[in-house]
Amino acid sequence: MSPATGHVLGVDSGGSGIRVALRAVPGSGPDLTWASSVPAAVGEQGVDARGLLGQVLPAARSLLARAGAQRCEAVCVGAAGMISLGADLRAVLPSALREALGVRRLALAADAVTAYAGALGQRPGAVVAAGTGLIAVGTDLTAECGWRRADGWGHLLGDCGSGAWIGRAGLEAAMRAYDGRAGGSHALLERLEAVFGPPPELPAALYPRADRPAVLASFAPEVSRCAPGDPVAADILRRAARHIAEAAAAVCPAPRPGREATSAATGRQAGLADPAAEVYGTGGACDVAVTGGLLRMGAPLLAPLHEELQLQLPHACPVTAAGEPLDGALCVAEALLTDSLLLPADPPMLRIVC
Amino acid sequence: MSPATGHVLGVDSGGSGIRVALRAVPGSGPDLTWASSVPAAVGEQGVDARGLLGQVLPAARSLLARAGAQRCEAVCVGAAGMISLGADLRAVLPSALREALGVRRLALAADAVTAYAGALGQRPGAVVAAGTGLIAVGTDLTAECGWRRADGWGHLLGDCGSGAWIGRAGLEAAMRAYDGRAGGSHALLERLEAVFGPPPELPAALYPRADRPAVLASFAPEVSRCAPGDPVAADILRRAARHIAEAAAAVCPAPRPGREATSAATGRQAGLADPAAEVYGTGGACDVAVTGGLLRMGAPLLAPLHEELQLQLPHACPVTAAGEPLDGALCVAEALLTDSLLLPADPPMLRIVC
Repeated sequence: MSPATGHVLGVDSGGSGIRVALRAVPGSGPDLTWASSVPAAVGEQGVDARGLLGQVLPAARSLLARAGAQRCEAVCVGAAGMISLGADLRAVLPSALREALGVRRLALAADAVTAYAGALGQRPGAVVAAGTGLIAVGTDLTAECGWRRADGWGHLLGDCGSGAWIGRAGLEAAMRAYDGRAGGSHALLERLEAVFGPPPELPAALYPRADRPAVLASFAPEVSRCAPGDPVAADILRRAARHIAEAAAAVCPAPRPGREATSAATGRQAGLADPAAEVYGTGGACDVAVTGGLLRMGAPLLAPLHEELQLQLPHACPVTAAGEPLDGALCVAEALLTDSLLLPADPPMLRIVC
Repeated sequence: MSPATGHVLGVDSGGSGIRVALRAVPGSGPDLTWASSVPAAVGEQGVDARGLLGQVLPAARSLLARAGAQRCEAVCVGAAGMISLGADLRAVLPSALREALGVRRLALAADAVTAYAGALGQRPGAVVAAGTGLIAVGTDLTAECGWRRADGWGHLLGDCGSGAWIGRAGLEAAMRAYDGRAGGSHALLERLEAVFGPPPELPAALYPRADRPAVLASFAPEVSRCAPGDPVAADILRRAARHIAEAAAAVCPAPRPGREATSAATGRQAGLADPAAEVYGTGGACDVAVTGGLLRMGAPLLAPLHEELQLQLPHACPVTAAGEPLDGALCVAEALLTDSLLLPADPPMLRIVC
C-alpha cells in the first residue's frame, strides 16, 4: 500500500486556550500553527462543539490558505474534558469537519492521549501530564490492554502531586505557621502574605472563586522557591514527587503476562540482567515521560522526582518529552492518514470516528 | 452588688439552621428552646442580619410569651461566619434587638466561642469544634491573651481532621484503588461505589455542587466503618486524630509566664508533681474538649484521638463537653446579665456590644 499524502490538522483544546497546527504529509517544511488564549466553553452538554469550531474552522482555513492547500485529509482533536464532557464534540465534530474541511479521517482524543503522543510518539510507555491538574496514561500498544489511566480526578479527589496539590499543601503549611500548629512553615507564611495579603482574609478571597484549582496552583512556584532552605516546603515537593511517580507506576505497561512468567523466572534463576529487557527491547525499559507546566518548578521538584521514578519504576527509562500535546495531535492525525496508527483506539481515551 | 434578674436569650446560627433558647435568671425550670432547619443566608454583606432576625425575633417573642415575660435583658448571638462575614450582623443587630425585645446587653460571638462556652463554661482551656469543618479556640481568661484560634480555614486551606478532611482522604484512597495506585483501599472503593456509583462519574457529580465540603464529609462515616478491618482507613483516622490534637495543642493556654518560670523551676528542682498544677488548680491540667458532629464517628476515631491528645497535650485534661453551642450562647448571655463574664471580650471572637 502506498503511503497517503495530503495535509493533516492537529487541535489541542485545553483550559488555557486552543491551538491548531497543519502539517504536510510527507513533510515539506515546518508545521503551520495558530493559537488562541480563549478556551472552549463548557456548558450543560459538556465542551461546546460549536464554540470550538468557531475558532478551529477559521484557523484551519487560514492555515490551509498559507499552505496553498484545499482540504485536510485527517484531523485529531485532543481536548480537556473529552472523557467525561465530550458528548457534544462526538455529536457535532464529524459532519462539521467533513463538510467544512473535507476531512476523511477523524480521531477524538483525551488531552492526556495527545500529551502522550506528543511526548513519546507511538512507542509503548507511560506519560504523566502535570500542570494545574495531573493525569497519567500508559499503553503497551495492544488492543487488549488499551490505555491505562491513573488520577486526573480533580483537586478534591486526586490530582496528587499537581500544581494545585503542591500549592494547596503550601498554603496549608503557611496557615499552620500562622496558627502555631505543628507542621507549619514561616517561610511559606511570608510568601502567602506577600502574594495574598493577610492570612485571615484568604478564605474569603479563595472560596467564592470559580478557578480555585488555578488559584491554588499559582502558589506552587512559591513552594519551589522556599524548598532549598525550608524543610516543610522540601517535604511537600518530595511527597508530590512520590505521588507523580505513583501515578506513572500505575499506568506503566507491565511485561506481558506470558513472557513475564518465563523471562522473570529465567532471569531470577540464572541471576541474569533485568528480565524486562525481553519485553521492552534492547533498553530493557519502558519509556516514562513527565510533561506539562509543572516541569517549570525546576530542580526542587525534579530532583526528588528523578529519585522517586528510579525507586518506584526501576525498570522504566525516564525520557524527556519529545513534544507537546499539539505535536501529539498531529502525530495521531498523520498516523490516520498513512494508516500507521499504533496507539490503541480505546474510547473514550482515543476514538477513531472515521 | 446584687445579682440582676430577668430573661436571657441565646442564639446559635450555624450552617444547618438556627436555634434559640430562653432562660430565666436566676434559674426556675428548664430553658425554653426553638429550632429551625433554615440557615441564615450569606450574601454580599456576609451573614444576612435581617434574614436572621426574621427567624429569631418571632421565635424570641414566642418563647417570651411561653415564659410569661415581656423582654430579654441580655442576648448572645453565636454565628458561623461571625469572624469574617459578620459586618451586617454588627451593623443591624444591636438596635434591632433593643427595639424589638428591649435588650440591654448584647454579645456577638464566633460559633467557636459559643461552642467553647457550651463545652467548658467559663473555665480556662481549649475546645475543638469539629463537624464538616474544624476550628479550635482556647483561652486562659486573661485579657492579654484573649482568644487563641487555630484552623477553621475551610476544606482547601485547612479544617485538618474534620469530616470533610476525613471524607476527602477516604475518597482519594478509593480512587487510588480504582487506578491501581499506591495507597489505595479496596474497602473504601467498595463504599464509594455503593454510595456514589461508578467512580469515573464522581468528579462530574461533585465539582459543580455548592456544598462540596458537606458532600466530602458525608463519606467520613464510611471511613470509620471500614477502619477496623482496613489499614488505609485506619491510617486516615489516625492522621485526623493527630491533626485534631495539633489544633488543640496550638490553642491550649500555656502556664502564665511569670508563674510558669517559678513553679516549673521549683517543680523540677524539687522533683515534685506537675508544676502546671499551680496554674490550672488542683487537677494541674488545662481542660480540653472536642465537641461537634465528628464525635459520632465513634471509637475508630476517638481511640486514636485520645492517644494523640495524651501525646501532644500531656498536661491537659480531656473532658467531655458539658453542652452545645446553644448552651454556650445562654452561658454568655447570663454572664452579661449578672456582670459575671469571665471569658475575654476579644473581637471578632467575642464582641460585647453593650
